[in-house]
Amino acid sequence: MTQYHPLTPHEAIELAKTLPGPFTADTNLECREIGDGNLNLVFHITDQNSDKSIIIKQALPYAKVVGESWPLSLVRARIEREILQEEYRLCPGMVPEVYHYDDDLALTVMEDLSDHVIMRKGLIDGASYPLFAEHIGEFMARTLFFTSDLGMNQQQKKEQQGRFVNPDQCKITEDLIFDEPYRIAQNNNYDPAIEDEAEALRTDEELHLEIALLREKFLTHGQALLHGDLHTGSIFVTPESTKVIDPEFAFYGPMGFDVGAVLANLLLHYVSLSGRIQEPSAREQREAEILNMVREVWTEFDTRFRALWASDLVDPMAKTPGYQQLYVQQLFRDAVGFTGAKMVRRIVGLAHVADIDTIADASEREYAQRKALAVGKALIKNNRRINTIGEVLDLVSSALTVVKA
Amino acid sequence: MTQYHPLTPHEAIELAKTLPGPFTADTNLECREIGDGNLNLVFHITDQNSDKSIIIKQALPYAKVVGESWPLSLVRARIEREILQEEYRLCPGMVPEVYHYDDDLALTVMEDLSDHVIMRKGLIDGASYPLFAEHIGEFMARTLFFTSDLGMNQQQKKEQQGRFVNPDQCKITEDLIFDEPYRIAQNNNYDPAIEDEAEALRTDEELHLEIALLREKFLTHGQALLHGDLHTGSIFVTPESTKVIDPEFAFYGPMGFDVGAVLANLLLHYVSLSGRIQEPSAREQREAEILNMVREVWTEFDTRFRALWASDLVDPMAKTPGYQQLYVQQLFRDAVGFTGAKMVRRIVGLAHVADIDTIADASEREYAQRKALAVGKALIKNNRRINTIGEVLDLVSSALTVVKA
Repeated sequence: MTQYHPLTPHEAIELAKTLPGPFTADTNLECREIGDGNLNLVFHITDQNSDKSIIIKQALPYAKVVGESWPLSLVRARIEREILQEEYRLCPGMVPEVYHYDDDLALTVMEDLSDHVIMRKGLIDGASYPLFAEHIGEFMARTLFFTSDLGMNQQQKKEQQGRFVNPDQCKITEDLIFDEPYRIAQNNNYDPAIEDEAEALRTDEELHLEIALLREKFLTHGQALLHGDLHTGSIFVTPESTKVIDPEFAFYGPMGFDVGAVLANLLLHYVSLSGRIQEPSAREQREAEILNMVREVWTEFDTRFRALWASDLVDPMAKTPGYQQLYVQQLFRDAVGFTGAKMVRRIVGLAHVADIDTIADASEREYAQRKALAVGKALIKNNRRINTIGEVLDLVSSALTVVKA
Repeated sequence: MTQYHPLTPHEAIELAKTLPGPFTADTNLECREIGDGNLNLVFHITDQNSDKSIIIKQALPYAKVVGESWPLSLVRARIEREILQEEYRLCPGMVPEVYHYDDDLALTVMEDLSDHVIMRKGLIDGASYPLFAEHIGEFMARTLFFTSDLGMNQQQKKEQQGRFVNPDQCKITEDLIFDEPYRIAQNNNYDPAIEDEAEALRTDEELHLEIALLREKFLTHGQALLHGDLHTGSIFVTPESTKVIDPEFAFYGPMGFDVGAVLANLLLHYVSLSGRIQEPSAREQREAEILNMVREVWTEFDTRFRALWASDLVDPMAKTPGYQQLYVQQLFRDAVGFTGAKMVRRIVGLAHVADIDTIADASEREYAQRKALAVGKALIKNNRRINTIGEVLDLVSSALTVVKA
């Protein structure tokens, strides 16, 4: 019936009118396309006669960021919709509610969250999110635990893993995070001022070995159903609320990859502060606040994950003394390695972060970039022997002492 | 058209007549059902007017070993047929050729290998297979390498992994190898004479931790397309030829699981020799021969796997200095752990091996069982720190010094 084609705003409105609730037939709808335009159309549809609104997200069959030459399977729309429903079941109120979907059109109709702001923007604007660590810790603990062999039937998990095979999206990650930053590649994108840093990344064999090992985990370790792209641009926040969006990179992978995404983006914001806040005491206070979020994100996750292990384990074998300790230790080490890999790629790879790119002063921007690379490389190189979040913060501190402003 | 039902021998003959070659229309076919009857019907169909013959293997929807109460998905027939075709492509002549299949009837028509003998029987009968280590090393190196991220396109591998999701068969392994031997379980089956050993398995927390870690690899590490049940009862041999059969447990798992299956079954045969060969010098000679096969299976695999890495790598990142060494070291350690787990389960778990069960003298049989457990436990407990096949053979030797005849 509905052969795939990108919707026009007019078609989006017509579709919205046919849906059961929230709009009535005599509604007066307005539609704006608000997507960042990389991979999807995002229609924001509001009723002019009420405060009701919805989002229609439609996948595009290519990545616009590099033109139409990078084709992407539309299967990710089905995957995104299915994981949103699964996450909603596990963490009600922490992801947008799915109202309707059409897999032929590769679209999902969902809750409008425009009373929230994108966390990356909120942080750049200086806002504080005192409940964020608790919320995201809860989100990651529940979604990772309950989709793993620890928290769900192990045979159903295998079938679910099969439904979330997501090669095109994984390929983007494999290339942009685990490959291109470490060689000359057309997609790479960095300031000529840090050519020395880019060159060093390409020739550092200690780093390459750790990246190859982390990449092998990404390729083979089907531990849990990941969000797959859990940076601060995929999180909507208010001081009271946290909502995770855009799980189109979902697949079964290593738990530490999601945890590392959150930590990396907080640390990228942390290293940007020297270029954003002039006044020393205000800067130091904000730096301490962000580092404290890094610590709390891990400790909240760790506490809640272990609590689920105590309360909701479906696997009696996992009660074996010593097993949880080794499991969580490895998860943490993986997270630290992925944190580093995600920091490095945001400086020299295709996609950057606004936290650093919008620093107005060129030398301050360069300083932040060099700090991000120093921290990222230190975390990557130490991932296999690190044990505590305190050690991570010590590594961050010691890595920064050698970067010159 | 052909709704699933178990074929009668008469129906098997009628089916054989409709197939293109090897039989002509006026053929005179005879059919014998020769399956061991656990999971499948196996029809051996021979032409009385020629030397032509075929095998028709049909999956049953339950495991007969425990009655009809253990239902098994017929999807394994499709999986077995697909992996046979893949293995035939990678190692022509080392698996039966598939002539025809019918997924509705869950059957595969394939090459008859009855000029070969089941290796377990051949070993028990005292035969030597001087080319076996080379052959199986080649088989494992090629099937594991070329179905992994090292040797095949990484996006196609993900799709292939999805096609080989095999929950029912994996569940059998998870229960029989990684769970039941370490607790009181209805399926367990062992000689009352070794109740002390069974009790020790149930209370040994060091062992339980290693088993839990090995099991986690089995559950999550989608490294390569495994045969999944590569014991000496799944291998047909002559002194000149090796053919691998019965890959219905195939799934994407840790490479070491297949390697460990071969090593475990050679070691199980090794510990049975004291109960099978009276004459000391003949026994010692055979023991040395079998231990040498253990050494050679690993070294042949290792050599060939590394050679493929040099010649056929599709993943440039895997050329990173040091990566191959860590990769193969971990593969070896996994193999050693799985070797131990597979030895233990064949003594106290549901399914035993004829090598040991057919030892006529009860005390000799008990001695062999205790030796198998001593070696198995030593390999499990040392798997995470072992580095060479020489160390494995030293561990075997030292584990046996404390077992009393």
